[in-house]
Amino acid sequence: MTQPNPFMHIAVTEALRGMRRNHGGPFGAVIVRANSVIARAHNEVLKTQDPTAHAEILAIRKAAKKLGRFDLSDCEIYSSCEPCPMCFAAILWAKIPRLYYGCTHADAAKIGFDDATIYQVIRGETSSTRLTSARIDEQLCRRTFEEWLLKQDRKLY
Amino acid sequence: MTQPNPFMHIAVTEALRGMRRNHGGPFGAVIVRANSVIARAHNEVLKTQDPTAHAEILAIRKAAKKLGRFDLSDCEIYSSCEPCPMCFAAILWAKIPRLYYGCTHADAAKIGFDDATIYQVIRGETSSTRLTSARIDEQLCRRTFEEWLLKQDRKLY
Repeated sequence: MTQPNPFMHIAVTEALRGMRRNHGGPFGAVIVRANSVIARAHNEVLKTQDPTAHAEILAIRKAAKKLGRFDLSDCEIYSSCEPCPMCFAAILWAKIPRLYYGCTHADAAKIGFDDATIYQVIRGETSSTRLTSARIDEQLCRRTFEEWLLKQDRKLY
Repeated sequence: MTQPNPFMHIAVTEALRGMRRNHGGPFGAVIVRANSVIARAHNEVLKTQDPTAHAEILAIRKAAKKLGRFDLSDCEIYSSCEPCPMCFAAILWAKIPRLYYGCTHADAAKIGFDDATIYQVIRGETSSTRLTSARIDEQLCRRTFEEWLLKQDRKLY
């Protein structure tokens, strides 16, 4: 094997550490800015019992806290596995322009994680077997958007 | 207007409160279990500078903490706006079986939020204008999954 990328090596180290401590599945992520690591994290779903505690989400939250801003457009993210849709969308919301990943969500599916299924549901390729949704109170909810548009000091983000 | 659903009414109240306090955009969410509210939240992206601090993510994290488990399969979620892909996937990871929403992501797009674009990127209907990705160090990353499969005390979630 050729010498691995040093940041991906850290992401993998995180993944192994988290799994060995039973913090969660084998997933690690690292956020890099100007060639320096500013956040590293591993999956902590089991440790924290927080279903959103994926490696990328935790790394993004740490990086944003460290930099004091939600805009991480000067950062890169390294993930030991292709991000699930939750984490992928979080990367877009954080405006991170560059993602490096190792395993794919097809690989994750093979070891028992739902990433591929969730992608299929969002792509409309299958219907969810465990979530049904309904639209209600449209008019009431629209009022929030009407007030937002009239708000003089609103900040877009 | 007919009487609104009382839980959606709370979600809308959260949305208005958060927006008026400049905590973030006009989005609120409520998690209900056995006809009682167990978590309520509004978007706090601007307040906390955390790009993942959407109403649904915060409500899910609060509910999981309160119940001490990541499995919220006995809960329902009410969101003043159709969840973005990050929040939609979080709802699936939390195993919440029922979602009620008011505004749509097309409505959110009209007031300046990227939800619809992120859905299109994930669906492959458009390519992201701000994220490029590359697969690297596949063999190294695969080792984490191999170790996971050999792990005797692994917990699937």
